[in-house]
Amino acid sequence: MRIGKYTLNFRNIKPKIISYSSVCSSFEREGPLGEFFDETFDDSFFGKDSWEDAESKLQSASSAGAIKKSGLKNEDIDFVFAGDLLNQCISSTFGVKRFGIPFLGQYGACSTMAQNIILSAVMVGSGAARNCLAVTSSHFCSAERQFRTPLEYGGQRPTTSQWTVTGSGALIVGANKTHGAISSDHDHIPYINFATVGKIVDFGVSDVSNMGAAMAPAAASTLKNFFIDTKTKPQDYDLILTGDLGIVGSKLLVDLLNKENIDIDKIHNDCGLMIYDRKAQDVHAGGSGCACSAVVLCSKILKDMEMGKINNILFIATGALMSTTSSQQGKTIPSIAHLVNIKI
Amino acid sequence: MRIGKYTLNFRNIKPKIISYSSVCSSFEREGPLGEFFDETFDDSFFGKDSWEDAESKLQSASSAGAIKKSGLKNEDIDFVFAGDLLNQCISSTFGVKRFGIPFLGQYGACSTMAQNIILSAVMVGSGAARNCLAVTSSHFCSAERQFRTPLEYGGQRPTTSQWTVTGSGALIVGANKTHGAISSDHDHIPYINFATVGKIVDFGVSDVSNMGAAMAPAAASTLKNFFIDTKTKPQDYDLILTGDLGIVGSKLLVDLLNKENIDIDKIHNDCGLMIYDRKAQDVHAGGSGCACSAVVLCSKILKDMEMGKINNILFIATGALMSTTSSQQGKTIPSIAHLVNIKI
Repeated sequence: MRIGKYTLNFRNIKPKIISYSSVCSSFEREGPLGEFFDETFDDSFFGKDSWEDAESKLQSASSAGAIKKSGLKNEDIDFVFAGDLLNQCISSTFGVKRFGIPFLGQYGACSTMAQNIILSAVMVGSGAARNCLAVTSSHFCSAERQFRTPLEYGGQRPTTSQWTVTGSGALIVGANKTHGAISSDHDHIPYINFATVGKIVDFGVSDVSNMGAAMAPAAASTLKNFFIDTKTKPQDYDLILTGDLGIVGSKLLVDLLNKENIDIDKIHNDCGLMIYDRKAQDVHAGGSGCACSAVVLCSKILKDMEMGKINNILFIATGALMSTTSSQQGKTIPSIAHLVNIKI
Repeated sequence: MRIGKYTLNFRNIKPKIISYSSVCSSFEREGPLGEFFDETFDDSFFGKDSWEDAESKLQSASSAGAIKKSGLKNEDIDFVFAGDLLNQCISSTFGVKRFGIPFLGQYGACSTMAQNIILSAVMVGSGAARNCLAVTSSHFCSAERQFRTPLEYGGQRPTTSQWTVTGSGALIVGANKTHGAISSDHDHIPYINFATVGKIVDFGVSDVSNMGAAMAPAAASTLKNFFIDTKTKPQDYDLILTGDLGIVGSKLLVDLLNKENIDIDKIHNDCGLMIYDRKAQDVHAGGSGCACSAVVLCSKILKDMEMGKINNILFIATGALMSTTSSQQGKTIPSIAHLVNIKI
């Protein structure tokens, strides 16, 4: 199941993305991808008593949506891989417990969706599972309160800072085509072809208002390893999609890879740059959070693949692995990036 | 790779535990298993500036120990599965980044070691990895400060409370026997035979000073599913070892299973009851923390298996999936238990 030094090879097995769903708040609905989300909520509490509960509801809603579209029952799904940014991943625990699916909690910060997909593909590809649910979430209010300052404080945000996406993306990886909602044309079912798990990369960035700069070197490292292992080049793909580098991190990534003679400039986009209208919405350097890459993938991107608009993409979700404690203790921000090559 | 509804079957592949290592503080050294730990530190800071850094050092030390004993190089290890109790799992991130091994962060609270072993076994069993490192840690001081009250406050602990183990356990799961330190007699290499991933179980317990009661129903659920799937009974095993139920949770587990006509009384032990001398050491209901099950497994238990004293065990690590935020918001404690059947 391996190719090269760091890459998993699924091309003979083709674990399929048999359904997906995305749920967001009204702020994401107002952005350029608004029409592609399955469900959006107007109120930041979504009818719950706390933002944490609201975030759990997002995971419940996206998971329920993906399960429903797949045509599967809960008991057909052998594992759920879930994780989020909140301490001890409570959005996931409280969000998915009602489904009664064996649970494997993941922590990859904003790289979680790619990590969940990779582990789901290994499970399905090896026959250890028939179907796996991969889900993650973030919520602007619960994240701000936990990682930065209470919202009521109204702290000013530097221009390098990013806006945590309020949303949740879920998808189901399975061995077989189903009668699910992904495409009536069954030739266009996306599948996982290759995947590269990242190493922890730490370039010494410690500014928690500049996550893009901290995470770009991790994305560069994983992409480089992937191209070497698969003997492919950026131009072999229709899209190289990073998770939430924002404008600062995206420019850094292009520069870092240029130094390695890898040119991704024309093929690269970033979920954090796609999800908001940076001119009209006050998000500074772009979107971020576990949900950022998850909801962009589980809406426009997979829909475009179903329709044959794009056929072969690299999805690289990036994560900043610090905590408020490590930052307060003066530590740098170790980062990671996991890559999934999705094809139809 | 599956047997029954919830259980993974590795008996044809036999992913092996090719080395292991455990590191603890002086308090664990003073307990009944003290002689079995590879390394112990006298000072709670282990020469570092903070308890969080000290906990990272524990993970570094146990991982380095397991790698050294295995005879492998870092680049022979394809993935590290690591997780811990600290917010955003910083003990793991900062503890293992220096090894440069592709990293998959896990969150299963005190069930993390079992979760890490299961995912390592799937990776190795499927050919997705040659070798995987599974590591976790906890530290009394970093956990108390984060989850309960500052140590300086000197809050009184109820008798149902447990004592977080300061330590780290690491092991390497691999496909092949090596020239490593596990046993000169290669007939006695422990391997993973079956594994059952738990569902989230929530019996409505919300007392964070009584984790044993919260987690016992999860252990009962996973054990029951395992016995059904494998068509085996408790008496088929030499030892049924739970992670950190302590005295309260252990009694509850025996009672809960008795109601299902499953009698584990004579075969059951709990790492939280083994690691400390509850009469001489002031730990109330027993040990707890991610390290509790990890260091007991990675010391006396695996040594006893190598020596042929015990041949067939069930290792069930349990986790309480709450956070301080969820508890302060009045939530219950969802729990989980993952099971690994280890044989020689």
